[in-house]
Amino acid sequence: CAAGDKTPGCSAYLSKRGNSIRQHQGILQEGYTQYHADRHHDTDNPDGIINMGTSENKLCYDLLHKRLTQPDMLDIDPSLLQYPDWKGHKFLREEVASFLSHYCASQNPLKADNVVVMNGCGSIFSSIAAVICDPQDAILIPTPFYGVITEDVHLYSEVKLFHVPLDCEVTIKPNLLAKLMVSLALKGLIIRAVILVNPHNPLAEIYTPKEMIAFLEFAKRHELHAIVDEVYMLTVFDESATFHSVLSMDSLPDPQRTHVMWGISKDFAMAGLRVGILYTENRDLVEALDQLGSFHGVPGPTQHQVARLLQDRDWVNEFLPENRRRLKTAHNYLTGELQSMGVPYLHRPAAFYVWADLRKYLREPSFAEELSLWRRFLRHKVVVSCGQAFSCSTPGWFRIVFTDQQQHLQLGQFRVCTVTPLGTRPSDESKKSVKEDGADPDNAVIVNSTLSPQSKSSEQLKEKDSPVPDTTPPASEEFELLDCEASKPTESLSSLIGVLRNQIHSSDWLEKNTPELSAGEDPEILDVFKDLLQRAKK
Amino acid sequence: CAAGDKTPGCSAYLSKRGNSIRQHQGILQEGYTQYHADRHHDTDNPDGIINMGTSENKLCYDLLHKRLTQPDMLDIDPSLLQYPDWKGHKFLREEVASFLSHYCASQNPLKADNVVVMNGCGSIFSSIAAVICDPQDAILIPTPFYGVITEDVHLYSEVKLFHVPLDCEVTIKPNLLAKLMVSLALKGLIIRAVILVNPHNPLAEIYTPKEMIAFLEFAKRHELHAIVDEVYMLTVFDESATFHSVLSMDSLPDPQRTHVMWGISKDFAMAGLRVGILYTENRDLVEALDQLGSFHGVPGPTQHQVARLLQDRDWVNEFLPENRRRLKTAHNYLTGELQSMGVPYLHRPAAFYVWADLRKYLREPSFAEELSLWRRFLRHKVVVSCGQAFSCSTPGWFRIVFTDQQQHLQLGQFRVCTVTPLGTRPSDESKKSVKEDGADPDNAVIVNSTLSPQSKSSEQLKEKDSPVPDTTPPASEEFELLDCEASKPTESLSSLIGVLRNQIHSSDWLEKNTPELSAGEDPEILDVFKDLLQRAKK
Repeated sequence: CAAGDKTPGCSAYLSKRGNSIRQHQGILQEGYTQYHADRHHDTDNPDGIINMGTSENKLCYDLLHKRLTQPDMLDIDPSLLQYPDWKGHKFLREEVASFLSHYCASQNPLKADNVVVMNGCGSIFSSIAAVICDPQDAILIPTPFYGVITEDVHLYSEVKLFHVPLDCEVTIKPNLLAKLMVSLALKGLIIRAVILVNPHNPLAEIYTPKEMIAFLEFAKRHELHAIVDEVYMLTVFDESATFHSVLSMDSLPDPQRTHVMWGISKDFAMAGLRVGILYTENRDLVEALDQLGSFHGVPGPTQHQVARLLQDRDWVNEFLPENRRRLKTAHNYLTGELQSMGVPYLHRPAAFYVWADLRKYLREPSFAEELSLWRRFLRHKVVVSCGQAFSCSTPGWFRIVFTDQQQHLQLGQFRVCTVTPLGTRPSDESKKSVKEDGADPDNAVIVNSTLSPQSKSSEQLKEKDSPVPDTTPPASEEFELLDCEASKPTESLSSLIGVLRNQIHSSDWLEKNTPELSAGEDPEILDVFKDLLQRAKK
Repeated sequence: CAAGDKTPGCSAYLSKRGNSIRQHQGILQEGYTQYHADRHHDTDNPDGIINMGTSENKLCYDLLHKRLTQPDMLDIDPSLLQYPDWKGHKFLREEVASFLSHYCASQNPLKADNVVVMNGCGSIFSSIAAVICDPQDAILIPTPFYGVITEDVHLYSEVKLFHVPLDCEVTIKPNLLAKLMVSLALKGLIIRAVILVNPHNPLAEIYTPKEMIAFLEFAKRHELHAIVDEVYMLTVFDESATFHSVLSMDSLPDPQRTHVMWGISKDFAMAGLRVGILYTENRDLVEALDQLGSFHGVPGPTQHQVARLLQDRDWVNEFLPENRRRLKTAHNYLTGELQSMGVPYLHRPAAFYVWADLRKYLREPSFAEELSLWRRFLRHKVVVSCGQAFSCSTPGWFRIVFTDQQQHLQLGQFRVCTVTPLGTRPSDESKKSVKEDGADPDNAVIVNSTLSPQSKSSEQLKEKDSPVPDTTPPASEEFELLDCEASKPTESLSSLIGVLRNQIHSSDWLEKNTPELSAGEDPEILDVFKDLLQRAKK
């Protein structure tokens, strides 16, 4: 849309940029908007939407309510009602530094001056993108990834994400990096940074220190900022697994370009409190972010409350284990249900979600079909997140959030199961556990409605080669995918799970492959690469 | 700075945009930063900086503290800890609509759907600029104006303010508007909107409904969005004055392009709570702002608290009159002191500041000298705001905030008085009330140290034609003025106060002059104008 454009859907009141912002629709947003208009409530709106899409922890409100209503939370010093230090009140930055020093097991005490507080990690992504990138520059991100980062760096800051697929075969070819750099040169893209989310979103994978170092070394070699998002650091609910923060490392490869994000949305189950944290030793970055701080300010009383929480180690040391216990129980419940449905999934010991393979419910392996399945879930009043929202290269994967009361999970799971597996023909063997439900506009049938823990191999419900045509989708199903780099489905993969597991651990391919580039075995590629570096420095 | 630039002051870690953001220094910011590093406190830091620069109301903490610590403030519903509707929780938007319907005396009830809540009015300026303008477009603003708006629309959104001087002679020449449009065409500027702050900042002037209508009609004629900032609407402390909100008008000239801003920073004396409000009937704008809402979210518990406050009409109806009473007392005190010093000022019945004429303390009528005086104040631990921060066209005017405890005003005023009036020669008549203070590095002398309410005409301390040379200023006094359109000092004005008062009331010159443009008396100008409109529509 240009300004004054009369095209339907274009607003004459908005600029070209404004129209673009208005029309920007992340895939997750549609479900989120519908959810907010029709939220499930046990008594007031029992038919409302169950949200298993948004990554929120709804398991600990009792603990939080009890603590947040203590009298110390209401202490209102006059300075809290005045304009603040836009990097965050010093008392809060000190508490954050002390808290992270302890819980990240840093070698030396972290410093309050290196802490920046903003209203959420989205704001931190947006403001970092604005100050380390120029418009149209790009940031590398491994896929699949938490898709909202696309909007975080783009809406205000006009920075693109360049997707590096870690979940498909091409990533492990030896000269990928060189090819990547050539393709970037052709596109005229300047890469400024690379983002890593650990524990991973949506895979819930935890990177090993070795993998993380390889990643940071790669960033250093290319003079890229490394933005490490550790918002799920304290959600590891299996004692056999250990999370290692970048802040615990003896020495960072490139400390001036290494920036760690954290927040209370996930680890303290309070996404609605809007508090995100950046830790960086780079003074220039802190100063630049300070300038943008007034757009991302956190209320003084909220800063006080968060400082009180972090300071109250007795409470924290009760809350965190209890939270992890509840996470584990909920995870067990959901994964048990998935197993009983014969749905393969990644079994991981962290975060609020599982990455599940619903390919057997697709009529054909396409993203349009994945979206259609996602919409069918939504019409049945359950929101989950489909793989394309994370730029997954293979259609049919979904992120399912398990951090809700069991009766909600149960209801959500029931609704998921009422959605027709349209790829399943009436004649096939899965029909044995399927009941027709003629009243449903989608010709829905109930699969496995008892949710009994029966063992069923994924083969039983696998894709059929002759799908039943869908009923005509309503016009509202038109949907445009934005900012989603087209990735090739990798049909040749025998098992995506195995590949995902292997390849997520193969992120040191960057390290392995770079020397051959640096050694200049292919002079042409090296030239392009050098040219790119030059450009980046301009 | 370009990326990788080795120039001193340029950061190799930041992009060109990032360096520009980092180096962007509003004039008020320097004082604000120093203030935050060295705040005055009666007992802990009695030698710290007194802040008479930041427009905060520090007179009502007792009332606010009492209300904010009531148990109803701590009610934490689980939904408050979850991701919100990014336009603001519906319960808050409903309270805001109801509150503004009453206090703005709207003809019909205002609607919750037209309300957008963000973390402060700076965020609202930033996000509106992003969606109604493209980068490098401009917004008109009458000068002098609250200078921070420059950063609000520029840092993220790269929108320029185009200054329309209301305080200098050129504005009332008949064909100014035509000239303005020609100059904009030459500069390639596209104007999208016009901003009006009412009550005015820094003049504290209240626009009459007739003036406001003239302004809105002007905006309509040129298809400009009219952004009306009414954040001081409830601070009118003189009963003889009446504020008329745009929301009270029977019918707006162009309702789809009229957007009203409000917040609790000023009217409820809680700048630190970070709550700004937009009221607009334009759905496209609301939808576009919703997309940017995640960068400007307000914590759920804060939204609850604000809703409770606005809902508690008994408390509001006690708070507002008491606040106005205190504002009036503080205003009386400060203006009495100014009168006793023979400092001319605009006597206005609203807001937190007075606009004072300190030209007699300048050695020469230049902005460099104004800045030097401002720095001298800062070295004597008092922050005020100098006129150039508001793009005032005449050097020597300062905005002085009076909304602080009397002992702080007294101390601030004392410190102001310890600064040498360097333009005053030892031989002149004002020396009668001056004591030398040799110990002061600035050769400071105390003017009128008793602060007695003696009557002294402004003539007594007027500028001298042969100023005493300053001591060599420290290197730190180097300062670059950014985003400040160069305005010509208007030496010919006999009395700036009179002109300001007259001209602020002459804003209907826009209306008067436009017909002659529309009538096309000057075909060349009309062509340029048409061309501009065409461009704007592209």
